[in-house]
Amino acid sequence: MSEALADARYQLALANRIVAHEGVLDGFGHISIRHPGDPARYLLARSRSPELIEPADILEFSLDSKLLTPTDQLPYGECVIHGSIYQARSDVNAVCHHHSMAILPFCVTGAVLMPLMGLGATMGATVPFWDSRDEFGDTPMVVTTAEQGRSLARALGPHAMVLMRRHGATVVGASLQEVVFRSIFSHRNAELQLRARALGDVAPLTPGEAAQAESYSLRVRPMGRAWEYWTTRLAKADELPPPV
Amino acid sequence: MSEALADARYQLALANRIVAHEGVLDGFGHISIRHPGDPARYLLARSRSPELIEPADILEFSLDSKLLTPTDQLPYGECVIHGSIYQARSDVNAVCHHHSMAILPFCVTGAVLMPLMGLGATMGATVPFWDSRDEFGDTPMVVTTAEQGRSLARALGPHAMVLMRRHGATVVGASLQEVVFRSIFSHRNAELQLRARALGDVAPLTPGEAAQAESYSLRVRPMGRAWEYWTTRLAKADELPPPV
Amino acid sequence: MSEALADARYQLALANRIVAHEGVLDGFGHISIRHPGDPARYLLARSRSPELIEPADILEFSLDSKLLTPTDQLPYGECVIHGSIYQARSDVNAVCHHHSMAILPFCVTGAVLMPLMGLGATMGATVPFWDSRDEFGDTPMVVTTAEQGRSLARALGPHAMVLMRRHGATVVGASLQEVVFRSIFSHRNAELQLRARALGDVAPLTPGEAAQAESYSLRVRPMGRAWEYWTTRLAKADELPPPV
Amino acid sequence: MSEALADARYQLALANRIVAHEGVLDGFGHISIRHPGDPARYLLARSRSPELIEPADILEFSLDSKLLTPTDQLPYGECVIHGSIYQARSDVNAVCHHHSMAILPFCVTGAVLMPLMGLGATMGATVPFWDSRDEFGDTPMVVTTAEQGRSLARALGPHAMVLMRRHGATVVGASLQEVVFRSIFSHRNAELQLRARALGDVAPLTPGEAAQAESYSLRVRPMGRAWEYWTTRLAKADELPPPV
Repeated sequence: MSEALADARYQLALANRIVAHEGVLDGFGHISIRHPGDPARYLLARSRSPELIEPADILEFSLDSKLLTPTDQLPYGECVIHGSIYQARSDVNAVCHHHSMAILPFCVTGAVLMPLMGLGATMGATVPFWDSRDEFGDTPMVVTTAEQGRSLARALGPHAMVLMRRHGATVVGASLQEVVFRSIFSHRNAELQLRARALGDVAPLTPGEAAQAESYSLRVRPMGRAWEYWTTRLAKADELPPPV
Repeated sequence: MSEALADARYQLALANRIVAHEGVLDGFGHISIRHPGDPARYLLARSRSPELIEPADILEFSLDSKLLTPTDQLPYGECVIHGSIYQARSDVNAVCHHHSMAILPFCVTGAVLMPLMGLGATMGATVPFWDSRDEFGDTPMVVTTAEQGRSLARALGPHAMVLMRRHGATVVGASLQEVVFRSIFSHRNAELQLRARALGDVAPLTPGEAAQAESYSLRVRPMGRAWEYWTTRLAKADELPPPV
Repeated sequence: MSEALADARYQLALANRIVAHEGVLDGFGHISIRHPGDPARYLLARSRSPELIEPADILEFSLDSKLLTPTDQLPYGECVIHGSIYQARSDVNAVCHHHSMAILPFCVTGAVLMPLMGLGATMGATVPFWDSRDEFGDTPMVVTTAEQGRSLARALGPHAMVLMRRHGATVVGASLQEVVFRSIFSHRNAELQLRARALGDVAPLTPGEAAQAESYSLRVRPMGRAWEYWTTRLAKADELPPPV
Repeated sequence: MSEALADARYQLALANRIVAHEGVLDGFGHISIRHPGDPARYLLARSRSPELIEPADILEFSLDSKLLTPTDQLPYGECVIHGSIYQARSDVNAVCHHHSMAILPFCVTGAVLMPLMGLGATMGATVPFWDSRDEFGDTPMVVTTAEQGRSLARALGPHAMVLMRRHGATVVGASLQEVVFRSIFSHRNAELQLRARALGDVAPLTPGEAAQAESYSLRVRPMGRAWEYWTTRLAKADELPPPV
């Protein structure tokens, strides 16, 4: 295994644990990255809770979500979410799918999630909403077929995040650090929107503020500061992944 | 003691601790299982908080809730909840009775608890509501007589869960893993319903979605993934039960 | 020091830590008990946060709140709350004064706190409301004079708990275990009332239910089960007080 | 380095960790103090999350926020918040800037934050509101220029705290202990106001109560009691800063 690949597997396990430790992922949900040496592949753990993932759990998939790693481990039933988005979006190198308790109220009611503060603007000014009933009628509320994956990727379009009716959210990024940062702060923005509603009407940042804040927040320095913070919290809780 | 029985006692202690650690049980409430070797008996701890239960605390009862284990330990005052349901429902092999802070608001107001997302659909499309006043008038808000237990079991009917007015919930399952999974995700669905209400009106999954999601979620794979997750969290907190 | 007194000091330190660990007390607030050997005295810690109290911090006071222990430690500014109630209520052997985040919303708005479930009924069917402005006009929102203490004790009357406008609550009990049990479950009942309001109108238990549930919940068995639970949680967090 | 300076650096690292551990600061935000030996300088950490700050991370700045410490470490982008306030307010010796989830709902909706209880009165009877659009139009929702810093300091005026539209709060104090105390209890007062709203209309303390409670709460004894409490909690979590 190349050093780059070994490192990518470790970082991916770490990212899964960070996003779980910060309360966005729980027993379900998953994060993937595009293969560092082959853009036609992506890396995603075997079917296991994010908080427990180790580098050795990371499998390789083709972009049409065929499992390429020889293994008797089972992949997640929803891996097509990841493959479909990597196929549709060459600018995307990391994907997080989750069902956080801050995001789900928006998925249940259809209320519009909007950027309210600088770090929340990292989710973009507009978060589209995907309703599986439109094309697929009643389903078990999971995305398991190639058709469903492609439909979701179309709904995502050029955006940074898509809400899924009564299901959760899928967040994308140019890098693993970016998808982690965006997943955590869109979750916190959603929590803020829920809390602010108790005090009165809520409106978004102005379009100019949202655009400027998004660029400002996604620079190397704030993302690096947060990454050090989240990693240290994980280390203090003795939850870092085992070395490769 | 047979190995199957020893294992059942350990698993039952573990299940009590998992459901407490995940915030559904607290100082009160309890989980039982049908005896692995004799369907006319069930296993339930002595009167002790779920988070503290050890395999040695597990007692045996007949289905009319007579204590069969020679002991000077006291059983829970509400053991009839368990016995009455095992008598009425031969398909039920595990029962959880709890008073979670997410479920109680529904028990106090009579608001209808409804499946809002896939994992929440494991509680079934309909959750009946039992009001102890209907047959028993004023009580100390506990279920301690055979008549009360049978009344509750009738209200449960063929369902997976019953709300108890101003008291809590009783959840049933075909297996211990199923009752744990259902108890935790019905609790989270209730929490979600409370939070979603702050954003607007809330409606349930379609009947077709609820039915498909229930079947999909109760398969071996998602239940096993969650079980590994919850057990590992317990182990990290140094809260596993002592060995038999 | 008699063994009974040494034990009382340890139990009082333990009780302070339990009620803090369960989220009712924080950096402020305090619990006292009547002296086990002299009903004309009470025991209360020096001015220190409840979670940190050790047996050596416990001081003795007369019922008019004169410090009897020779020490250069400072008592709490609000010790008159305790003395005034022991003077007025010979049936009271323990007092807890706190400012929990579940109780304070009732103190701020004047909304009526009501028993909603069995364990919550331990606070009594009626919780009176004391407004310091009625007799004392503007104050720094603390109870520091004998007159204020007597006024509060009159407002408490024969009840188990009194709300203090924009300040907190004072809870009394026949024993230390009872005041701990009542403080924790009245706090949880208040939290439940706040949460239930989000779903609809909230009404109390019937008077008959409240009376039966109060008696049932304050028996030795449930109070002992909870005490074991809370003490074990404290021990696991390595927060037990040091031995005398 | 003088002993006073070495101690100031340690105390500043400790204060950052306390306010993070109590849930007010998170990965972002910062606390500074005026230099103990030179009122024309202030001390502030390099760009790092508050929970991780060590004495060695503390840098020195002039009051116009020029970095005086020779280092290749980067300062926070928003250090002008601190310098501008030290320039405008000779009575201020410590500043905390944060984005707590209790304060942000007020920053998003413009709802008036008001003192509701004694410890909350430490934020003052009036908390002004600064809107960056008034002078600067669309920005990335950060305060990074000298002009913005001066504008914020003008909005703060003689008050103890200023809310910043869709951004957070800046809190000032005569000492480090005071700014920590005020930051934590204004945060808790905000949380209380959010919770109380669910029960009914909310009004502030009377002006006389607010003034008396502010003086009473900011005495040495309550601030010292809380400081011991917060420091001990940090020590138990093994989160104290390393020695100088």
